[in-house]
Amino acid sequence: MDIVNLYPLSNYTFGTKDPMYEKDRTVESRFNRMREDFEKYGMRHSVEGVLLVHEHNLPHLLLLQLGEPSSPLYLWLTEAPCYAGPSPSGTTFFKLPSGELQMGETETEGMLRIVNNTLGREDGMKTDWKVRDVVSNWWRPNFEAPQYPYIPAHCTRPKEHKRLFLLQLPEKALFSVPRNYKLVAAPLFELYDNSAGYGPVIASLPQVLSRFNFVYI
Amino acid sequence: MDIVNLYPLSNYTFGTKDPMYEKDRTVESRFNRMREDFEKYGMRHSVEGVLLVHEHNLPHLLLLQLGEPSSPLYLWLTEAPCYAGPSPSGTTFFKLPSGELQMGETETEGMLRIVNNTLGREDGMKTDWKVRDVVSNWWRPNFEAPQYPYIPAHCTRPKEHKRLFLLQLPEKALFSVPRNYKLVAAPLFELYDNSAGYGPVIASLPQVLSRFNFVYI
Repeated sequence: MDIVNLYPLSNYTFGTKDPMYEKDRTVESRFNRMREDFEKYGMRHSVEGVLLVHEHNLPHLLLLQLGEPSSPLYLWLTEAPCYAGPSPSGTTFFKLPSGELQMGETETEGMLRIVNNTLGREDGMKTDWKVRDVVSNWWRPNFEAPQYPYIPAHCTRPKEHKRLFLLQLPEKALFSVPRNYKLVAAPLFELYDNSAGYGPVIASLPQVLSRFNFVYI
Repeated sequence: MDIVNLYPLSNYTFGTKDPMYEKDRTVESRFNRMREDFEKYGMRHSVEGVLLVHEHNLPHLLLLQLGEPSSPLYLWLTEAPCYAGPSPSGTTFFKLPSGELQMGETETEGMLRIVNNTLGREDGMKTDWKVRDVVSNWWRPNFEAPQYPYIPAHCTRPKEHKRLFLLQLPEKALFSVPRNYKLVAAPLFELYDNSAGYGPVIASLPQVLSRFNFVYI
């Protein structure tokens, strides 16, 4: 069974860096750009990174939060100013470090570029995260929000394929968090059966990660 | 990425055999026996088998159904008489081939014994199923229905640990189905986001299986 070493949250330190904005400022412009890119380049390939730590031997997932803090269950790692741009339905949302693959880039290269851009240090020192197992795949059949963990029947040309990778963290690290986000560590029980709070991709991580044998160091 | 060969449903044939009854005829007696066994032997170790086929290049999960047929989405593989014992809430329910490990038995040995007892042929010929990847793990913290894909906080002695294995089917096979069950092939989209119909363990299989690269042969 696949062994994953988890280090305590206290092994990691957190700083801030310049804000990192989404390419699309509204949901409408997001799907418009997706449609335009699809006509030019075909299906979008995205990758997302699953970063885990432990707190008292309970696995916690690192999440980027945009918007207002809400739940007392989180361990707040950074206290950055709130997002200045248009807020998604006036409330908060959570995401994994994620992005689109560029032309000619492998998934591993793209994943490392994205996690370095999102959480890497600013002083030129490299963080030794390793891209490990595929944990899940999701497909978007239309230029719309719904995504599924399979290619739906009669969908011959999905618009986006998203692959989630487990990243092995080094024993210790400094994360630099864009100032418009907060970095939070959420316990798996907070995500479980909570699509309403986190969306279906993040909410299913407790189930998809259950195959791993976590070792708490 | 892990490759799984799926063969068409039409490669398989289906017969029937003597009924196979659950050890416990009521929910109450089930949890009573679990409590008694826990005091004698400690945590129960269960295994469940995930058997997949394809139909027009869509993955389908083989499920044992007890009770009345309900959904037109299924491919009915057997038409056996309905269950004669007490029906769970008067309706239907679905399960994977599953059972408890015996003393001194490895997980692979137990899984093979259970799938052979449940679906193996009666003529003495062996079916060449291979026990492959762990797909998920579930823990039951109390002598009650709820199970979770992690050990809940403050639960020092889970009452049951359930491990789901992906089984690689041979290219062709004859399945002998206990006469009190129907064997059905359910497409993943029927299971997805449908805990109400299948329970949380089966309903999360689309997400946990999404990491595999299915090859339709």
